[in-house]
Amino acid sequence: MKNNFSNMVPLTEDSPKKQETVCIFGTGDFGRSLGYKMMQCGYSIVFGSRNAQTSSLIPKGAEVLSHTEAAQKSGIIIVAIQRQHYNFLAELTEVLQGKILVDVSNNLKINQYPESNAEYLALLVPGAKVVKAFNTVSAWALQSGTLDASRQVFVCGDDSNAKQVVMDIVRTLGLTPLDQGSLLLAKDIENYPLQLFPMWKFPIYLSLGLSAAFFFYCLIRDIIYRYVYEGKDFSFFVAISIPNRVCPIVALILLALVYLPGVIAAILQLYRGTKYSRFPDWLDKWMLCRKQLGLVALAFAFLHVLYTLVIPIRYYVRWRLNGYVISQINSNKTDPFNNVNGWISDSYVALGILGFFLFVLLGITSLPSVSNSVNWREFRFVQSKLGYVTLILCTAHTLVYGGKRFLNPSMYRWYLPAAYMLSLIVPCIVLVIKFVLVFPCLDRPLTQIRQGWERNSSGS
Amino acid sequence: MKNNFSNMVPLTEDSPKKQETVCIFGTGDFGRSLGYKMMQCGYSIVFGSRNAQTSSLIPKGAEVLSHTEAAQKSGIIIVAIQRQHYNFLAELTEVLQGKILVDVSNNLKINQYPESNAEYLALLVPGAKVVKAFNTVSAWALQSGTLDASRQVFVCGDDSNAKQVVMDIVRTLGLTPLDQGSLLLAKDIENYPLQLFPMWKFPIYLSLGLSAAFFFYCLIRDIIYRYVYEGKDFSFFVAISIPNRVCPIVALILLALVYLPGVIAAILQLYRGTKYSRFPDWLDKWMLCRKQLGLVALAFAFLHVLYTLVIPIRYYVRWRLNGYVISQINSNKTDPFNNVNGWISDSYVALGILGFFLFVLLGITSLPSVSNSVNWREFRFVQSKLGYVTLILCTAHTLVYGGKRFLNPSMYRWYLPAAYMLSLIVPCIVLVIKFVLVFPCLDRPLTQIRQGWERNSSGS
Amino acid sequence: MKNNFSNMVPLTEDSPKKQETVCIFGTGDFGRSLGYKMMQCGYSIVFGSRNAQTSSLIPKGAEVLSHTEAAQKSGIIIVAIQRQHYNFLAELTEVLQGKILVDVSNNLKINQYPESNAEYLALLVPGAKVVKAFNTVSAWALQSGTLDASRQVFVCGDDSNAKQVVMDIVRTLGLTPLDQGSLLLAKDIENYPLQLFPMWKFPIYLSLGLSAAFFFYCLIRDIIYRYVYEGKDFSFFVAISIPNRVCPIVALILLALVYLPGVIAAILQLYRGTKYSRFPDWLDKWMLCRKQLGLVALAFAFLHVLYTLVIPIRYYVRWRLNGYVISQINSNKTDPFNNVNGWISDSYVALGILGFFLFVLLGITSLPSVSNSVNWREFRFVQSKLGYVTLILCTAHTLVYGGKRFLNPSMYRWYLPAAYMLSLIVPCIVLVIKFVLVFPCLDRPLTQIRQGWERNSSGS
Repeated sequence: MKNNFSNMVPLTEDSPKKQETVCIFGTGDFGRSLGYKMMQCGYSIVFGSRNAQTSSLIPKGAEVLSHTEAAQKSGIIIVAIQRQHYNFLAELTEVLQGKILVDVSNNLKINQYPESNAEYLALLVPGAKVVKAFNTVSAWALQSGTLDASRQVFVCGDDSNAKQVVMDIVRTLGLTPLDQGSLLLAKDIENYPLQLFPMWKFPIYLSLGLSAAFFFYCLIRDIIYRYVYEGKDFSFFVAISIPNRVCPIVALILLALVYLPGVIAAILQLYRGTKYSRFPDWLDKWMLCRKQLGLVALAFAFLHVLYTLVIPIRYYVRWRLNGYVISQINSNKTDPFNNVNGWISDSYVALGILGFFLFVLLGITSLPSVSNSVNWREFRFVQSKLGYVTLILCTAHTLVYGGKRFLNPSMYRWYLPAAYMLSLIVPCIVLVIKFVLVFPCLDRPLTQIRQGWERNSSGS
Repeated sequence: MKNNFSNMVPLTEDSPKKQETVCIFGTGDFGRSLGYKMMQCGYSIVFGSRNAQTSSLIPKGAEVLSHTEAAQKSGIIIVAIQRQHYNFLAELTEVLQGKILVDVSNNLKINQYPESNAEYLALLVPGAKVVKAFNTVSAWALQSGTLDASRQVFVCGDDSNAKQVVMDIVRTLGLTPLDQGSLLLAKDIENYPLQLFPMWKFPIYLSLGLSAAFFFYCLIRDIIYRYVYEGKDFSFFVAISIPNRVCPIVALILLALVYLPGVIAAILQLYRGTKYSRFPDWLDKWMLCRKQLGLVALAFAFLHVLYTLVIPIRYYVRWRLNGYVISQINSNKTDPFNNVNGWISDSYVALGILGFFLFVLLGITSLPSVSNSVNWREFRFVQSKLGYVTLILCTAHTLVYGGKRFLNPSMYRWYLPAAYMLSLIVPCIVLVIKFVLVFPCLDRPLTQIRQGWERNSSGS
Repeated sequence: MKNNFSNMVPLTEDSPKKQETVCIFGTGDFGRSLGYKMMQCGYSIVFGSRNAQTSSLIPKGAEVLSHTEAAQKSGIIIVAIQRQHYNFLAELTEVLQGKILVDVSNNLKINQYPESNAEYLALLVPGAKVVKAFNTVSAWALQSGTLDASRQVFVCGDDSNAKQVVMDIVRTLGLTPLDQGSLLLAKDIENYPLQLFPMWKFPIYLSLGLSAAFFFYCLIRDIIYRYVYEGKDFSFFVAISIPNRVCPIVALILLALVYLPGVIAAILQLYRGTKYSRFPDWLDKWMLCRKQLGLVALAFAFLHVLYTLVIPIRYYVRWRLNGYVISQINSNKTDPFNNVNGWISDSYVALGILGFFLFVLLGITSLPSVSNSVNWREFRFVQSKLGYVTLILCTAHTLVYGGKRFLNPSMYRWYLPAAYMLSLIVPCIVLVIKFVLVFPCLDRPLTQIRQGWERNSSGS
């Protein structure tokens, strides 16, 4: 709704009443943009600057004064200058006494300084109430009104009244304030806009690496081998046929890797006899990106579905099917219907459809708004129970696809097994271990350990 | 974003400053886990316990004292003990006077006790400010940092300052507090984590029942009948062909059942001449799970689409099409193009595509984050207008699919009509009644009644 | 979760304790419905009315008094009367002194009055604390408990304590209060429920217009032309074949129109040498509905995918393919495999699949809950980088589809080029300009301008 609101407010609107005066230190791009936006929403703006001259860039109607004069005009001072120029603020400690200082700064790198800019500001000006805000909004977005992604403004600070005042300003600008708690969290808020999908990096690099490896593997088996031994040019397979081998393989391996760390953690806990020891770092990190791994797997599965469904409209497939009919006619015999083939063909497709269906369900429940509306028990039911059913269905889909071909020596070109056989290794390992862990003799102690019981504990 | 935040905070981080001391009553699993997490976030923790000995399980750095001593050290006491052991707290009334008591308990069953645990606690310790919180977070999730589903912490309480203090702790732990209002709502908050999709049970059981019934119906008509009379084994139909009959049937019936209660309610209101009488309970419950019914219907429609799109890659279908071509060749004639068949084939497919498209649109608008961003008028437009168009398109899809076959006696094997004919009954009833209700002579009084007018009213 | 909560509370529940007395002015439909709901949640209700008689419509247990008497009984007065009857409230100024007045009114048209109803109320009764709330909830929804879309209650007001009191009532009713800030925002809140997808109108009308135009264009080329010159009746093409030409064309043009305003804005900024001049109004509006344009384009692309995937199950397509095989047999020759055709067929399909895949990704990231969980940098990465890759893939898909046919004169029926050629004009223009803008000699000054630099500036 916020979206519609600010869209409906014409940007040049004259607000009915001036609400209050806000002081902005710094006449750089962000200070000017913020001032411009605030004036549109009815605030009086005073800029504090080293050289107190109104330049053509300053929004019309705003005053430009020296820092001291400007600070005296308002109870709220927005510090829109860079951290390395904060020093002069220490000299203004007296005039800033009891006032609200809003730190809007960002850094260039994650964890650039030992403490956050806002905490540094609070140290410099001990008497002021420092609030961190607005750093997640871009100047360009404020200017143009196209605030699709950045409507949320994270606010933190130690003084709760000061936070309220700042959050009211945020709301008046048509943005959504999110109270993040005390100033301790300023570091997270400052790091936030510098991130570029941190949790997605490992899953995406892993999937790209797997895709490349299997792509070349299939290239060798399906194009180069045939070119060398059969003299046929199947180079156009790189467009659809090979991607349609690579995608399901990567999807199945990634899906299995979602459930592998849980299985490893269970073994570790059983071995250690306690849940209070920390997991190794790599396992912790792996467990934290399981959701992203699963969603990347879903993306590959989605591509596999599309690649599969277009098979009948491919020129090559139509040509081959026609050739098959013509060869039957010419040899004057019709192949009888093979009931086993009918069963295999239909059941591997049906398993794939059901697996993909559950996979999509899992993907939908990991949307933030959906996972927020289920409780812990429901979430575990979906992600654990349904997730394992999905893994079983997808593994079975691949196994039945293999069908009678597993032992067919013609499948081992240059002694290389078909790619789909390699993709079955990880899922089968996960499913076997999980199957073992489900037995009561292992499940019961594991449940106890996860409820806080310790094997070697004397206390409690 | 919360997600990324807490993921980036290393779990072993030494926090820069100790904020304040919080007391936790109880050294069970949840108490220890919460204490451990709070110490990571910079709090000092004092455990209150019957036997004040530090065991190996207590997080390092936390003190363990008697209940009274521990309570004196802090203004906030987290009561991490089970309800049946609350009694001893009545003896501590004096030392707990004016302090904030946080009830984190859960029950084993929904509505286990007449009043909520938090209200019971408030009765036991009248001078304390009781706040309900943290019960939706699992100890295991706190421990492992994998808080995907349970990032939301519902908070309620009668004292607004006490609530603020607790919500600040929640935020510092990297969780999202949601103020639910007064302590009256504690019962709902305590029931919440015990639910397992309460609104989904009826739609899912209904759809499974319908699926099973139609599955056996089709099994008899399509496999057993053919085996008995034609001696052919079509058992592999259970994988794709029969599911692809059952899915659209169940989807269409469920979609009609979404709109049936609205139509019944309109008739009831017209008959009673008022909207202020309550509907019968079954109708109330039915109306409340319409969204879930619709989403289950969408799931079946999605499966139907997948099952339909894989038709051309099935071995059986290819074999039959080849046989058809070969038989044409052998008999040396080519079937001419039948324009009527072209029209019927294309239009029933087109109707299905449009119906599924609108169905997906309806599904997307019922995602929580999407339905939150539309207003009442827009929601009604989509769910009512678009919904009926979807129902009309899907019913027409089925009718045209039937095409000329309705009166074909060969369709009535063992006097059983084809399954799709049965699926048309409910949608047609709904559409006919709705069509009648749209006439002004019925629509006008209905609109008046829904605006508060009463037929038999003298007052107002 | 809210959803589940209020669903679980039976509507006839007797609340354990009466919380407080709330006064409602007005016994119309909304006042009665709200009173009924509040009584279910444990409030005592006093109605203020001109004729203080209890009618049968008033919920049982509620008192009806004169306005003055009713107002004296409570600190909170909900004004459930229409704006044109507000005048009498001015006479009650004394008794309303210091009380909380909740304005729940709506207008019939957007911006019906110069100031909002709530601000008008605050002018009439200067001593009262006016809070705007509840106007987005419908009486019918309150009554029936089916509050799917309208669970959010926007609250604004100048007195922060009064807002808190009202927000607590909202929470107790099982609704979600959203603090919108000061009373200045009442106008937006009052306009909100009157909107019907304001940002979607332009994209939807544009897409319908384009669809109609291209539909008739294809009708002429594919059906009428053939009927006139070849005497064949292809009228059934209107069901699938022509929609499957129109959908991809409209999708591609709309997708290009998403990126055209950004390109125009860049040219304008380069020409003006500043980002501080406002864009023309049409450009501003265009930029604000880019998200909606993109989603409508995605809908058309989705339809195109469905229409394409059903091709092999169409009767016409099967008949034509069979005819092709039979003609090969009869002429006793088999067409050899054409490697170029294999490449073209597979690569245009593969480009389409990848384009659609990225398009779906873009659509998912524009879901409110997803776009709220990414920061500005991530959002720009997805919407700008991925968006352009999508546009390139989709344009390439269309170009390769054209393949060798571009210069084939048989494609120019009645001198009309094939429709897909027309669809390439806008995307190619956008991509060419974007390609030029990426060159450093233009990209560098543009980046500087967007960081606040001005070509003709002396100050700063």
